[in-house]
Amino acid sequence: MSERVSLSMDGPVAVVALCRPEKRNALDLEMIQAIVETGEALMDRKDIRAVVLCGDGPSFCAGLDTSTFGTLVAQMSKTGGITARTHGDSNLFQRATMVWRDLPMPVIAAVHGHVYGGGFQIMLGADMRIARPDSKFSIREGKWGLIPDMGGMALLPQLARADLIRKYIYSAEVFDGNAALNAGFITEINDDPKARALEIACDIATKNPDAICVAKELITEIEHASVPDVLMAESVAQAKLLGTPNQMEAIMAGLEGRKANYKDPA
Amino acid sequence: MSERVSLSMDGPVAVVALCRPEKRNALDLEMIQAIVETGEALMDRKDIRAVVLCGDGPSFCAGLDTSTFGTLVAQMSKTGGITARTHGDSNLFQRATMVWRDLPMPVIAAVHGHVYGGGFQIMLGADMRIARPDSKFSIREGKWGLIPDMGGMALLPQLARADLIRKYIYSAEVFDGNAALNAGFITEINDDPKARALEIACDIATKNPDAICVAKELITEIEHASVPDVLMAESVAQAKLLGTPNQMEAIMAGLEGRKANYKDPA
Amino acid sequence: MSERVSLSMDGPVAVVALCRPEKRNALDLEMIQAIVETGEALMDRKDIRAVVLCGDGPSFCAGLDTSTFGTLVAQMSKTGGITARTHGDSNLFQRATMVWRDLPMPVIAAVHGHVYGGGFQIMLGADMRIARPDSKFSIREGKWGLIPDMGGMALLPQLARADLIRKYIYSAEVFDGNAALNAGFITEINDDPKARALEIACDIATKNPDAICVAKELITEIEHASVPDVLMAESVAQAKLLGTPNQMEAIMAGLEGRKANYKDPA
Repeated sequence: MSERVSLSMDGPVAVVALCRPEKRNALDLEMIQAIVETGEALMDRKDIRAVVLCGDGPSFCAGLDTSTFGTLVAQMSKTGGITARTHGDSNLFQRATMVWRDLPMPVIAAVHGHVYGGGFQIMLGADMRIARPDSKFSIREGKWGLIPDMGGMALLPQLARADLIRKYIYSAEVFDGNAALNAGFITEINDDPKARALEIACDIATKNPDAICVAKELITEIEHASVPDVLMAESVAQAKLLGTPNQMEAIMAGLEGRKANYKDPA
Repeated sequence: MSERVSLSMDGPVAVVALCRPEKRNALDLEMIQAIVETGEALMDRKDIRAVVLCGDGPSFCAGLDTSTFGTLVAQMSKTGGITARTHGDSNLFQRATMVWRDLPMPVIAAVHGHVYGGGFQIMLGADMRIARPDSKFSIREGKWGLIPDMGGMALLPQLARADLIRKYIYSAEVFDGNAALNAGFITEINDDPKARALEIACDIATKNPDAICVAKELITEIEHASVPDVLMAESVAQAKLLGTPNQMEAIMAGLEGRKANYKDPA
Repeated sequence: MSERVSLSMDGPVAVVALCRPEKRNALDLEMIQAIVETGEALMDRKDIRAVVLCGDGPSFCAGLDTSTFGTLVAQMSKTGGITARTHGDSNLFQRATMVWRDLPMPVIAAVHGHVYGGGFQIMLGADMRIARPDSKFSIREGKWGLIPDMGGMALLPQLARADLIRKYIYSAEVFDGNAALNAGFITEINDDPKARALEIACDIATKNPDAICVAKELITEIEHASVPDVLMAESVAQAKLLGTPNQMEAIMAGLEGRKANYKDPA
């Protein structure tokens, strides 16, 4: 695996860190590919209960490494241009965001420093986002005469109002953690976002992993579904959980006031 | 009607109270059935302008009565399991939430104390939710290795961001009224939620009941509709109101500065 | 053009002002027609980068001029009633709101004083809304036994939660700028909303106009689209921008630290 991204385990929690700190984790082709490969490698890891996604050094991710812009465009041309769906519903860049959303276990992003452009969009693929109050956010693409196209347009409407999406896309302005929290881009502010993300991930790891996976899949699935369809989907999902060994263990551990001991999901 | 739920009238406002206070209004089969029956009984009550939904005793509703879990599962098995649509688009449990949403007149939930699991979901069926600041909320199903399946997955996305839904479902944590307000689960905080809910309901009762019913139906209907469809729907809805006796009475009363005197909706 | 609406240019920014100040810019037939005509006249103005929509005198717009209600109803009857789609997907009244949404360049509404009924809905067609804190808002239609039908039902769900929409429609109550901000109806509070709207509009005018137009069109288009469809749409939109003269100018100006010099969009 590339040195651009590190993967380490903290018990049942995987910690994925962008590690190109001298460039504020700017996205060159190698970094984009490493992010996608790391995410894909977690897809079948039944032993992992949650993922923390963070960045080494002074910033989470300063966005595209513009000095490598020519290489990036050349790479995309070789594979049919950015409209070619080379990774399921996505192109390579979009996959760097969507892979976190598609993982079966929850992903908690911990961000600090610069969270710009592609870096801003990648964090949107996580289930939750914890940020330092002094983080510097920007939907930066407008500065280069472009629009966000790494999944941002698909994920922003679930988090923020239409007027705020317009405001930050049109202006490409820099805003801090509290503005990001108020807009809905961030779930929580914390002075130590990585520690808080680990705390959330470790708490998730104490829960029935079957229920967590079913919940994540269901929440993703229902976003544009009709009410009758969601009513059916939640019943079908629950029926998969009721009376299974892990669910019975959740009840027994709860009644006995002890730590539950779950099997990995099937 | 069961003693589990009381129904009383305050002028044109119906007050529905869960009344199993010694069990914090926990949901056993009798309570679930009583909630559904009470809601259904209001469906054709043209004389009722608004409903207040509240709980007697120390809590609104502590969720499923887990001591009766076996009875509940047995009952659902008898009727085809939880995926059988025994109540329109819903099963019995989902209907306890959705019946409030389907009533033609607005429903204001007033909650306090424990608002857990099934109790949390039932309040989501109301048009608005008023809560004491010291209420204790929890999307509790995760504690038992399950997911919310009483309509919660269908109604939560209209109120809260995707990341907050994930946070509270994954963690099953307890949170207070202000956290619930910030997340969007609650409309208003008030030290006396029942009094405030009655105030809102009585204000609604001074309005043209035809317009209130048309508005509620339209707001429910448009949630996943396209913009052109909603533009047509709002015109069709308004055309039903314009020039009708109650609408003319609204204008006359407004111009004359007097209380309007409306007929019951057709 | 009618004297009901003024259009002036501030560099590349158009300022549209409702100007019937002695009636708090109340909407009679002439005003509605003037708003629609002014908006339509901007549709092909490639030289205009952004629009500020405001009201002269003490209020942005006090809503329908009820003294002319008979004339308005007569006019609508002549053209097939309010359900006839005389303006694309809309009737005349709805078009007064939707025309701002359909313009290719961003529209910033600056509101103050009374923002009632039809005036409230017209501002919803803008991309962003800046309001004085002491503005008086009301979804006023309920006072007249009616519902909002000038596009409000289509645009409110993108800004505010279902319970808050219900609260303000049912009650027809008056609320101030901070309540409007908290509900999501307003983007920013400012003591001088017109100056702030001009500032935002002038900032937009410094950006690649192709990217701004593509972004606005895309944000409007994606509101009810599925995630895979939006992923494709953002790639297609970006492909239209990459390497075009204005986008190259954005990069060069950014790298050289100078003001960009863009051509009008095609």
